[in-house]
Amino acid sequence: MPSQGHTFDPWYSSYATRTLGLTVSEVRALFAVASRPEVVSLAGGSPFVEALPEDLIRQAFERMMRDHGPEALQYGGGQGIPQLREKILELVAIEGITDVSPDDIVTTTGSQHALDLVTKLFINPGDVVLAESPSYVGALGTFKSYEADIVHLEMDDEGLDPRALEQSIRELRAAGKTIKFLYTIPNFNNPTGVTMSAERRREILEICVRERVLVLEDNPYGLLYFDKPAPDAIRSMDADNVIYLGSFSKILSPGVRVGFVIAPHAVREKLILAVESSILSPSTFNQWLVTEYLNQADWRAQIDTYRGIYAERRDTMLAALSEHLPQLSWTVPNGGFFTWVSLPESLDSKQMLPRATKELVAYTPGTGFYADGRGHQELRLSFCLPTPDRIKLGVRRLANVINDEMELIETFGGMGSRTSDRKHYEQAPADLA
Amino acid sequence: MPSQGHTFDPWYSSYATRTLGLTVSEVRALFAVASRPEVVSLAGGSPFVEALPEDLIRQAFERMMRDHGPEALQYGGGQGIPQLREKILELVAIEGITDVSPDDIVTTTGSQHALDLVTKLFINPGDVVLAESPSYVGALGTFKSYEADIVHLEMDDEGLDPRALEQSIRELRAAGKTIKFLYTIPNFNNPTGVTMSAERRREILEICVRERVLVLEDNPYGLLYFDKPAPDAIRSMDADNVIYLGSFSKILSPGVRVGFVIAPHAVREKLILAVESSILSPSTFNQWLVTEYLNQADWRAQIDTYRGIYAERRDTMLAALSEHLPQLSWTVPNGGFFTWVSLPESLDSKQMLPRATKELVAYTPGTGFYADGRGHQELRLSFCLPTPDRIKLGVRRLANVINDEMELIETFGGMGSRTSDRKHYEQAPADLA
Repeated sequence: MPSQGHTFDPWYSSYATRTLGLTVSEVRALFAVASRPEVVSLAGGSPFVEALPEDLIRQAFERMMRDHGPEALQYGGGQGIPQLREKILELVAIEGITDVSPDDIVTTTGSQHALDLVTKLFINPGDVVLAESPSYVGALGTFKSYEADIVHLEMDDEGLDPRALEQSIRELRAAGKTIKFLYTIPNFNNPTGVTMSAERRREILEICVRERVLVLEDNPYGLLYFDKPAPDAIRSMDADNVIYLGSFSKILSPGVRVGFVIAPHAVREKLILAVESSILSPSTFNQWLVTEYLNQADWRAQIDTYRGIYAERRDTMLAALSEHLPQLSWTVPNGGFFTWVSLPESLDSKQMLPRATKELVAYTPGTGFYADGRGHQELRLSFCLPTPDRIKLGVRRLANVINDEMELIETFGGMGSRTSDRKHYEQAPADLA
Repeated sequence: MPSQGHTFDPWYSSYATRTLGLTVSEVRALFAVASRPEVVSLAGGSPFVEALPEDLIRQAFERMMRDHGPEALQYGGGQGIPQLREKILELVAIEGITDVSPDDIVTTTGSQHALDLVTKLFINPGDVVLAESPSYVGALGTFKSYEADIVHLEMDDEGLDPRALEQSIRELRAAGKTIKFLYTIPNFNNPTGVTMSAERRREILEICVRERVLVLEDNPYGLLYFDKPAPDAIRSMDADNVIYLGSFSKILSPGVRVGFVIAPHAVREKLILAVESSILSPSTFNQWLVTEYLNQADWRAQIDTYRGIYAERRDTMLAALSEHLPQLSWTVPNGGFFTWVSLPESLDSKQMLPRATKELVAYTPGTGFYADGRGHQELRLSFCLPTPDRIKLGVRRLANVINDEMELIETFGGMGSRTSDRKHYEQAPADLA
């Protein structure tokens, strides 16, 4: 554990400054608890890969070995194989990105790798990354690992608030800060499930172009919509000011770790060098596997299958919340994996978690999704992996925990340890004055 | 191209300081030229994967899908799957590393990924990395990408010179420099093919322990010896002061990008966090594939097959050098992929390369393997990928180029452009005074 590092680590004084901020993510610490089979985990973000017919993978593998065996086993180029980059054009066209060639694409070891490399390319210690409020825990961790200052921007049910963006840029620059990019998940946001409206996308992009703030658009869930497609990607409106991240983790398999970036020409050149520096080349084996999957399988139908499954699970979860926790509020996602639940002010999602896991249900406390200490009154529920029956069971258990907590508070006037934790919250304000 | 970045890149002023040093590696620029089929490439470091029976991969894949399908397609933990880490114990035991448990191991996206993460964890801008003279171009690039000062240490035919190590540490510290680690490839070094003797390993380790300099031992080629095994790994003598990097790229396939690190406990904890921050988790799919390969295939026999092939190719190359270029000197590697050739003082390996590729042979100029401008009178020849007949042809072509150059010089008294390049050399001394 990092907090014990000083005591037991003989190399403690040797680490780079950036390493001292590297701490165990709240999500990671949860995995150990939530992976016990008796616990209903509404915590993770793992896709339901059991819905992928394994024969589709077998066929892709056989074709790859037959036609490209030695090539798939060999090193490749840092940009990724052209055949996959060609197929990616079909994927991104669905979200309105059509002014792109295979040459604009770099494949990566999942889109987390792309996040890491973009951050490495742009962030000096102290540079500002703007992010939604809340935002993806894995991105916040990567930004911190390069010593970025993360500044959260308010959002509502149409996504990022353009006025908050303008005001933050103004205030940050007045305070002498350097803003490098805006990180956004416009579709079915992780963790809130909120989708940025088309109008907002235009406004946000316009502000960023005017203010010379690069947009880092992260879109792992875009094709997994339920009722109607999300608006076109921000990247579809602008090739020069947007870096777009895509992934096969949610529409095929996260185990193969294949993601991609679409970037402006000069940035893309640097990204290729950064890929080479970090891993030499992305796995040719997995790139060929994905290419042959896209060549042979009806991948659009497979995405429809996923959409149906996740839509049913969302419906199940929201119905269970309405039934068992009518006093709370939550978001209604039109795609993706998550809903975001607000607790009554007297509850604390982080403190409540041990009691929840004792009752055999796990969720992700809101605190992991803020870099500024917020999130104690919110939690993320995921409906992607558990079956509908398990979702119902999980929400029922969660309702028991929450109702017990509320009763305790009403009886005794507050949770014992809440005061000290609230103090912690007040001691960890945003980095900004 | 980076040199044009300023002119055409609208985001040029936004990059992090570290990005400004990110340049196209000499090896990368070569790939485009050397990959034309009519060129005999003695330039790359790609293993001869055609020697791997594809049925071994098919069987591993089938077993993986049968027994671990959904798991292989899903996210995994940042440390890597325990089953693979368990099998890695058998691999490293061959090189004398026996005081290790699966818990000490972290799997990575090839060992380049491990190199990148160790550097990220330890290097502040300006910190010193000590390295062999010459050293692996990919490692030098990674060190530079975190703004390390690379200081080369002299070596002879027994590897790193312990006196040079002691003297460098003394001088660097007197100059106020912070030394973070010594990077070494003790077995069949890339690019020289030289192996560090057992006695030297003890001496080097002793100095590093005494001086509190971490040892980063990179061992991709250790199992590919020809006549007799290399001495035991440095890591076999010390668990607390050595970070050990291993790889499946040369004994199985680089296309699957599976490498690993053995690190002291506290460093390992930080490495896991760094893996998560950079890629969430290494590919479970590829880790299971490698695990089932190790479970089912006679992988020791497969390594013996590789050893036989590479030994024959080394013999072919050294015989061809003796026949066609008797006036030059070169190293005699007892394993691995490379020999290191010294040119007469009047020749320049970097300048000669375009003429060589015109004559349909490619090599790697020595300059890529130094961070301090040296290497103009040296070149690396690889015998791993081309067949013996192609090796003979390549060396014959190289001899023609070299002999033509020598004749020109004897006739006209020197190469036209050499003076300016030599000036460049003098303007790029070691970072150290």
